[in-house]
Amino acid sequence: MASSSFFFWLLFFAVALAAVESVPVFVPGAYKSSLKKQINKNAKPKIPYKTHYFPQVLDHFTFQPISYKVFYQKYLINSQYWKKGAPIFVYTGNEGDIEWFAANTGFLLDIAPKFHALLVFIEHRFYGESLPFDKKDLKSAKTLGHLSSQQALADYAVLIRSLKQNLSSEASPVVVFGGSYGGMLASWFRLKYPHIAIGALASSAPILQFEDITPWSSFYDAVSQDFKEVSLNCYVVIKGAWSELDAFEEKKGGLTKLSKIFRACKKVSSVYYARNWLWSAFTYTAMVNYPTEANFMKQLPAYPVQEMCKIIDGFSHGATKLRKAFAAASLYYNYSKTEKCFELEGGNDDHGLQGWNWQACTEMVMPMTCSNESMFPPYTYSHKEFADDCMKQFGVKPREHWITTEFGGKRIKQVLKRFGSNIIFSNGMQDPWSRGSVLKDISSSIVALVTEKGAHHADFRSATKEDPDWLINQRRQEVEIIHKWLQEYYADSKLE
Amino acid sequence: MASSSFFFWLLFFAVALAAVESVPVFVPGAYKSSLKKQINKNAKPKIPYKTHYFPQVLDHFTFQPISYKVFYQKYLINSQYWKKGAPIFVYTGNEGDIEWFAANTGFLLDIAPKFHALLVFIEHRFYGESLPFDKKDLKSAKTLGHLSSQQALADYAVLIRSLKQNLSSEASPVVVFGGSYGGMLASWFRLKYPHIAIGALASSAPILQFEDITPWSSFYDAVSQDFKEVSLNCYVVIKGAWSELDAFEEKKGGLTKLSKIFRACKKVSSVYYARNWLWSAFTYTAMVNYPTEANFMKQLPAYPVQEMCKIIDGFSHGATKLRKAFAAASLYYNYSKTEKCFELEGGNDDHGLQGWNWQACTEMVMPMTCSNESMFPPYTYSHKEFADDCMKQFGVKPREHWITTEFGGKRIKQVLKRFGSNIIFSNGMQDPWSRGSVLKDISSSIVALVTEKGAHHADFRSATKEDPDWLINQRRQEVEIIHKWLQEYYADSKLE
Repeated sequence: MASSSFFFWLLFFAVALAAVESVPVFVPGAYKSSLKKQINKNAKPKIPYKTHYFPQVLDHFTFQPISYKVFYQKYLINSQYWKKGAPIFVYTGNEGDIEWFAANTGFLLDIAPKFHALLVFIEHRFYGESLPFDKKDLKSAKTLGHLSSQQALADYAVLIRSLKQNLSSEASPVVVFGGSYGGMLASWFRLKYPHIAIGALASSAPILQFEDITPWSSFYDAVSQDFKEVSLNCYVVIKGAWSELDAFEEKKGGLTKLSKIFRACKKVSSVYYARNWLWSAFTYTAMVNYPTEANFMKQLPAYPVQEMCKIIDGFSHGATKLRKAFAAASLYYNYSKTEKCFELEGGNDDHGLQGWNWQACTEMVMPMTCSNESMFPPYTYSHKEFADDCMKQFGVKPREHWITTEFGGKRIKQVLKRFGSNIIFSNGMQDPWSRGSVLKDISSSIVALVTEKGAHHADFRSATKEDPDWLINQRRQEVEIIHKWLQEYYADSKLE
Repeated sequence: MASSSFFFWLLFFAVALAAVESVPVFVPGAYKSSLKKQINKNAKPKIPYKTHYFPQVLDHFTFQPISYKVFYQKYLINSQYWKKGAPIFVYTGNEGDIEWFAANTGFLLDIAPKFHALLVFIEHRFYGESLPFDKKDLKSAKTLGHLSSQQALADYAVLIRSLKQNLSSEASPVVVFGGSYGGMLASWFRLKYPHIAIGALASSAPILQFEDITPWSSFYDAVSQDFKEVSLNCYVVIKGAWSELDAFEEKKGGLTKLSKIFRACKKVSSVYYARNWLWSAFTYTAMVNYPTEANFMKQLPAYPVQEMCKIIDGFSHGATKLRKAFAAASLYYNYSKTEKCFELEGGNDDHGLQGWNWQACTEMVMPMTCSNESMFPPYTYSHKEFADDCMKQFGVKPREHWITTEFGGKRIKQVLKRFGSNIIFSNGMQDPWSRGSVLKDISSSIVALVTEKGAHHADFRSATKEDPDWLINQRRQEVEIIHKWLQEYYADSKLE
């Protein structure tokens, strides 16, 4: 393996296991490239929003000449249900095209009429079209240096304030919403900018996935748990598949054989790609183990983990574990049965990824490991290796203690019991990210809504006729709580 | 007047009225140069603290190559009363040498034994010795760009966290203290970093002196009120002195005469300097109208406003208003009777000022005016002129809406009624800065302690035998409230 691809491997593993994979939505090649296809196919998702661009300042926290550089931040607006003075619901965009998040957050459209709410989706700086520099220049610390969560939060603050002023609606209460990294941003926004947002609904937001707050093995233990719960055999098969896979690296003609088993469009250059392909399939499927058919990261049936395990458990005797695992993973990549072969390589160096890889290499350092109990090969995290890789790729040193210094997280119950208010942390326990989120009420108004069968921000998807009661109930509770925040806000408005 | 001095005049007025003067402690030439003398005379203030330096990162919010530059931040420690596990009291330094704040915050030394507290005074970046760049280079946006309040708060967060780790005292609760701009920082620190500080005592912190939250004329109206309350004649004399002063600019030989009246060491080049000299004397004296003899900005008797008015009221008939005003102002500059003549010019371009001028020109934009009711000449604020001056001096454009976007302030009662906790805003109504601070309780734990006769962070001064009951009482309440925060903290520690 050439040193550059070895580095990529390392980086992928370090980042994929520890951070890239580590943030749900926005991740490795497989999904990202498929998303691209999907978008290309359908042009843009059809969503009832108008597109706007806001002149945003590059650096809110310094006053150097470069700080004043202006870039255009994209945001989407739906005002069809809005009545002046009524609330403004803002989605704090995460790492990707904002249309995609808008298309997958039907919940806001569903509840807007009830609140006569204005809906605003703001794109995160350095993603989608909101690029302060030419895309081709986004490769090093010099340009990427201004991509950080605090700058993004300040963008939201400045944009919301300006928008309210332009709409002559300064008294309209703002509630922020976000899922995954966007949920982290929403909860942090409420904590840092309480004068701008009266509350936050943070769905599947792993704000505790930093340092040693959450056990490093919990993410992949949770993925494994999803499969084990469905079928012990399914779990055992997947767990056993990795060593069978690795054996192909050494075998003569192994990669050719492996490529055939995996129906690769092009012969793989390392077992790594097959491993990553499987790994991503199981991990993402656990995340999006929704109770209804859905097309978030891929088109998938209801309860896809169950479907995968059905495939594995349905095999006749004699099939290798690897073949079974491949068949199960194929469900993820080809439920729509449109793929003639699979692209196991490629897509991994998609530029769309780079933004998150950068964030993972600077502040979003989320250490992850695979324990012996997980269905993945054992994996330990070395911060030194991770830091070396980041230095190699971006010339940047990770600040692994920064997020907890800036946003807290340690002993969160004690810190927020008597401080802050109006945050909902919603989680589904099928989603491995739930383990790094807030799963218990902190106070009477910083609350956790947890469903056993929910997956990655399931509550944010559009309501469907097939939705189970627990999901309907979770959304109903959210609406009630937000309603209460608004009532309090309007009552308190008479104070001054 | 040469264009450069005209600019300086404008800048001084804009900044002195609107911002420099606008922040109390740290201000125009007069005081600053006198401080320097004082320090030179006594070498360094004798304070029972050990000096340390912390390697601090230049930019917490970006990851450019320059962001990682390290500078050495000075901090002072007193551990003579500390017991491990007991609280850590941190003073969030403001715009000046940290020793000076330590020397004038005897309150912390007074209460440390009661709490067995560790005392830490942290110097603000770009002041004192905590300079990221050579002093001679601190002239433009390129170097000064990283001087901002948010970077300062992040410095405190990083330093405190590291200090606690080094002391193996991570469970020790931290309470932050600050006066004036340092008080603004303390209250903001509690709001932004509740996971690091369990509470804040913000003394004379004008966090509402931005945009249109506080009427622009309130500062100088309050100064005037202090004098009027003592004696209507005193107020009328000062109010009438300005036009007498201005007449000297036009008179033949006027500046020579004026210089004689003002006992100037060197003939003044414009009445501006005499005006500024008077203006500063009355403004600062109002601020430090302490009930006991004190030497904060200058050596002064107890209730110096009263003493000044005694001088004015004691004049025989026939003396001009200007001569009376001069005599009163002389008390401020020469209570110790050591000055043979006064340096009316000079000192104004002292480099020590520059840090605050920069902050006033970037984020700390505090508009101020003089109304017809004030004892000062009418003055209006033009943001355009102010911004032009800042562009001229530093090449920087003020972000006049930034502080309220980042830290709030508008409708503060409504915003913080159900958010946040454990902040004391202490104020004395003699201090003109009190008008821009929080003067009413916001909630049961964000409270205002207001004294009618108090001055600029009078509560922070060392206790003396002459202290009046209201001051003793204010400090007692502060101690009780902090004690309650600590009790709650220790009780809550059992939560996790």
